[in-house]
Amino acid sequence: MSSAEGFVERLVTPAIGEEIFALAAEIFPICRSITGDGVRRTLAHLRRHAALEVREVASGASVFDWTVPDEWNLHEAYIADAQGRRVIDARVCNLHVMSYSEPVRTRLPLAELKRHVHSLPDQPTLVPYRTSYYQRGWAFCMAHEQLAALPEGEYEAVIDATLAPGRLTWGELLIPGREPDEVLLSTHICHPSLANDNCSGLALLTHLARRLATAKPRLSYRILMAPGTIGAIAWLAQAGPGVQRIKHGLVLSCVGDGGGPAYKRSRRGNALVDRAMAHVLGKGWPDPVLLDFSPYGYDERQFCSPGFDLPVGMFQRGQFGKFPEYHTSADNLAFIAPEHLEASYRTIVSALDVLERDRRLVSTNPFCEPQLGRRGLYAGIGGDKNAPSLNMAMLWTLNLADGAHSLLDMAERSGHPFGEIAAAAERLERAGLLVPAA
Amino acid sequence: MSSAEGFVERLVTPAIGEEIFALAAEIFPICRSITGDGVRRTLAHLRRHAALEVREVASGASVFDWTVPDEWNLHEAYIADAQGRRVIDARVCNLHVMSYSEPVRTRLPLAELKRHVHSLPDQPTLVPYRTSYYQRGWAFCMAHEQLAALPEGEYEAVIDATLAPGRLTWGELLIPGREPDEVLLSTHICHPSLANDNCSGLALLTHLARRLATAKPRLSYRILMAPGTIGAIAWLAQAGPGVQRIKHGLVLSCVGDGGGPAYKRSRRGNALVDRAMAHVLGKGWPDPVLLDFSPYGYDERQFCSPGFDLPVGMFQRGQFGKFPEYHTSADNLAFIAPEHLEASYRTIVSALDVLERDRRLVSTNPFCEPQLGRRGLYAGIGGDKNAPSLNMAMLWTLNLADGAHSLLDMAERSGHPFGEIAAAAERLERAGLLVPAA
Amino acid sequence: MSSAEGFVERLVTPAIGEEIFALAAEIFPICRSITGDGVRRTLAHLRRHAALEVREVASGASVFDWTVPDEWNLHEAYIADAQGRRVIDARVCNLHVMSYSEPVRTRLPLAELKRHVHSLPDQPTLVPYRTSYYQRGWAFCMAHEQLAALPEGEYEAVIDATLAPGRLTWGELLIPGREPDEVLLSTHICHPSLANDNCSGLALLTHLARRLATAKPRLSYRILMAPGTIGAIAWLAQAGPGVQRIKHGLVLSCVGDGGGPAYKRSRRGNALVDRAMAHVLGKGWPDPVLLDFSPYGYDERQFCSPGFDLPVGMFQRGQFGKFPEYHTSADNLAFIAPEHLEASYRTIVSALDVLERDRRLVSTNPFCEPQLGRRGLYAGIGGDKNAPSLNMAMLWTLNLADGAHSLLDMAERSGHPFGEIAAAAERLERAGLLVPAA
Repeated sequence: MSSAEGFVERLVTPAIGEEIFALAAEIFPICRSITGDGVRRTLAHLRRHAALEVREVASGASVFDWTVPDEWNLHEAYIADAQGRRVIDARVCNLHVMSYSEPVRTRLPLAELKRHVHSLPDQPTLVPYRTSYYQRGWAFCMAHEQLAALPEGEYEAVIDATLAPGRLTWGELLIPGREPDEVLLSTHICHPSLANDNCSGLALLTHLARRLATAKPRLSYRILMAPGTIGAIAWLAQAGPGVQRIKHGLVLSCVGDGGGPAYKRSRRGNALVDRAMAHVLGKGWPDPVLLDFSPYGYDERQFCSPGFDLPVGMFQRGQFGKFPEYHTSADNLAFIAPEHLEASYRTIVSALDVLERDRRLVSTNPFCEPQLGRRGLYAGIGGDKNAPSLNMAMLWTLNLADGAHSLLDMAERSGHPFGEIAAAAERLERAGLLVPAA
Repeated sequence: MSSAEGFVERLVTPAIGEEIFALAAEIFPICRSITGDGVRRTLAHLRRHAALEVREVASGASVFDWTVPDEWNLHEAYIADAQGRRVIDARVCNLHVMSYSEPVRTRLPLAELKRHVHSLPDQPTLVPYRTSYYQRGWAFCMAHEQLAALPEGEYEAVIDATLAPGRLTWGELLIPGREPDEVLLSTHICHPSLANDNCSGLALLTHLARRLATAKPRLSYRILMAPGTIGAIAWLAQAGPGVQRIKHGLVLSCVGDGGGPAYKRSRRGNALVDRAMAHVLGKGWPDPVLLDFSPYGYDERQFCSPGFDLPVGMFQRGQFGKFPEYHTSADNLAFIAPEHLEASYRTIVSALDVLERDRRLVSTNPFCEPQLGRRGLYAGIGGDKNAPSLNMAMLWTLNLADGAHSLLDMAERSGHPFGEIAAAAERLERAGLLVPAA
Repeated sequence: MSSAEGFVERLVTPAIGEEIFALAAEIFPICRSITGDGVRRTLAHLRRHAALEVREVASGASVFDWTVPDEWNLHEAYIADAQGRRVIDARVCNLHVMSYSEPVRTRLPLAELKRHVHSLPDQPTLVPYRTSYYQRGWAFCMAHEQLAALPEGEYEAVIDATLAPGRLTWGELLIPGREPDEVLLSTHICHPSLANDNCSGLALLTHLARRLATAKPRLSYRILMAPGTIGAIAWLAQAGPGVQRIKHGLVLSCVGDGGGPAYKRSRRGNALVDRAMAHVLGKGWPDPVLLDFSPYGYDERQFCSPGFDLPVGMFQRGQFGKFPEYHTSADNLAFIAPEHLEASYRTIVSALDVLERDRRLVSTNPFCEPQLGRRGLYAGIGGDKNAPSLNMAMLWTLNLADGAHSLLDMAERSGHPFGEIAAAAERLERAGLLVPAA
């Protein structure tokens, strides 16, 4: 009884969770930062699945209030003891070096070294993730219990990195639909080996883009994978007035863990994407979290800045900053799972389905109910255990088909899932009882 | 201290519950369906109390998307065993025959007979009520335990009925008020011997019409007793643009049991009748049920179809389909009671009182409070135990008498019952402190 | 980090609670009524602190629907027993005589005397407070247990008072601000020796006026101390169209006890003063009481009459009429305390601070976030334990600085205290990131 046109049926494939997980695992080891080869290499992996364009802007370029920073590339980083044994090595775990550390090669006593080491006394077995993009310096990150156990003595600290004019890189893909209105789907590409934040988002969005590209959607979809903050700002700076084609948007953050899900509304608070996500979460999850917009989080901060005020919300599972694995070495491949990735994917696709299919219809028989029985509209679903619900969905759709209510309005008012209302509307349209509103 | 003009004081008479019950009992035995002599005979009984006009439309007439069906009249129906003993007989209980059964006179073995018998395995002592208006066939209804106990053998099944072109009948009465705006009061007239659904509604509405006819109301009242669905559709089809005079409306359903009460809002959701019913139920009942409109129920479905969108709600006690006696032989005269009928009547009259008396007034002393004491408006009620509440009602009425607030607005905002606000307004109007808004 | 311009920092001084208490204690013994020397003497005390003008209107003057009553002055009042021993004496407690009692000098037996004595059987040790402004008569008030213990016999009842044409008196002070828009701050001056109701309000408002007078406020402040009801009406009657300059207002009632606090909204319900008080109470108190307007209470009744409909709310601690000491001799100096007076004062000042500083700003960098780090706006507060909250306040302020949101809108939406938002706005304005909205 479900609609042949539904996105869920067309875009959710049986092994989708496994496929997303495999791609996340593939890009997990790469050392990414907000610039550098790590981003380029990651995009090369993703381009095997979706035709992302690689776009760049030079260091020093002005992007609104900001300047594109120098490009950072890490070749090697380690701490070695007096015997030359490597205590930590970025080859083992790229979190060990603070992102954007300046090059250094020095010998120094333990006490002095400790001033350049970040650790987590409350999570003593985990390596923290630290960055210093806009303040020069160098530092290492290591497990607190390892740091505490280091014997006194002299150590060698080596960060072989380049921090010099270069380029900032992002991936972008426009999937044209039948209409020019765009849906922006964005995730950041700047974190090193963190699985949930945000290999999960990159992998999910790549597989979604791949399927959208062949789905002949009504709306156009703009896929964006840009480094956090500066990348989104650089993209917006070059996007020009075309940004106004964005009619709906979602930022994807941590989508592979078993938490939440949580949806953070756009600054507007009641945009169609906000209502679609609230509806889909309310129907599909036992205890979803709906958060009002706040100007802190991922790149929805930029898309929702007052000059743009784009209708862009943010979807995540566990809320960033709130799960203990966040920004530590515990955010690894064991922390994400195919079933969570699939559930996130399915939820996003369900919301896109609302955006795709929401529309206004008018009844061709607005005076009294039309007689459904003689058209076989009751009988045709007699053997279906969902028949009472589908019958009610038809009655609701006919009753509210006054041109003022969209299908999502009907779903919200009636309590029926959007998919049931949309299926009822298509059935009634085929029977000539509904026509598109003028 | 209460207003001499209040509908409650004028329309609620001491024996009203008993009178309604007696009339319901009088029409209970008649075998009604959506057409036929049962409707005409019922109207003949009701016309002894209220001057209902009998109106008809011919079978085959087109009414919006529907066609008026053939007229059905039952003369006799029974199942007899091989010895000629009548197992069930519609003369004993007219629920035994499915309404709109085609004529049949046949002998058949038990197994075959059972394919033509409806029963309720979960309520084995009760006879169900079944209809088949738009699909030809014949069937009997009987208690499941009686059915189960039938010995094997051959049975005679007789339904002596006519199903042929004729007329569909309804009762209608317009009680003109001082103003042409109409209140539609409607109940269905198509169920056979079911006491609550809806002999109760027919009897209550008849006695209400009788009293309204002499009450010199402000509004005009249109009383409608039409067969469910097709009757309401036929009435709307012939009503023409006059239907737009309907400014408020109530469909009455099961009003004689001790459940609820429940009020289902009109499609508009915030029409004056919706607010009046919510106010009256909130003030008069400990735990009333307020339901949002849904396109399933009684004839509010038709009145609230999108082309009409009339402000018509539905009042019932127990919610139809939810009480176990619904559409069974247990919905008999023992299931309804005079006190419940009176309470329903009183609630409806209280809501009509709001519709009658709601209006906008302006203060003749809008700057600061007028001095009530020197006009005896405080003193005059000094000995009344309700004095503090009535004083507050006066202060509220004066404060909100800005032409923007109606009396119901004042009642809602202040928390006072509408009757207290209306009484205060009349007292203040007599004292020259309030005048009608322009 | 807090703003140098905040009212709280400028108007709340360390000993403010003690100072208000001392002034309340000073005026406590004076026998006030709605007219007479008690009002004049009270104003003389208050004028030592704030330059209140004393204004008067003659008895017999018409003020809207009312007439200014004769002036009442009490010289002596007592009941003496047959031996001439004074049973009660207004010199001991001026509550012993009903306000506006006519002069009387008579001897009468106990039974007859009792018809002229008010007492509180449920609070047998307390003297009630009674008035009879508009109905002539005389009466005493005494503790019920004292009344019950009076031996039979003849008593002398003496009320040496004058009730004759004179004047009604109020105190008023306009503190001009940089803008002509006015804040009305009003409390009644008519109760005799009742400490909370309302020596507390008079003393608090006097000390507030004193500090406002040197605070160079943006708004103009009109301080009004008029006798309840008739005084407010008389003031409004002579105020003319100038009353429309009042853009915000607060009536202060019992502000010295430890109850509440409670704020009663203006008739408009969502005036800026209503929102400011709700915000300040929500941020500063664990369990504040927010009450909708009702036309019963203090002089907000007159300011909120429909012809004026001024945005004037009422602030109190314990709700009048609800605490057991209300209108009895237990409302004495032991019932109020410096810390409660200070807390009330601080709350009022915090709300005035919102009125003073609420404004609309626009971002000079509306596209994407401005880079705060390079301006030292993050770093500058690095050592502050409130830094995360202040950083968030900056992000919110920048995000909502679209000219459509005022600072209070931002505080309400973000959940930050108004003071934090205002401080963030000032910091950002100094950095050139915000400018006033056109």
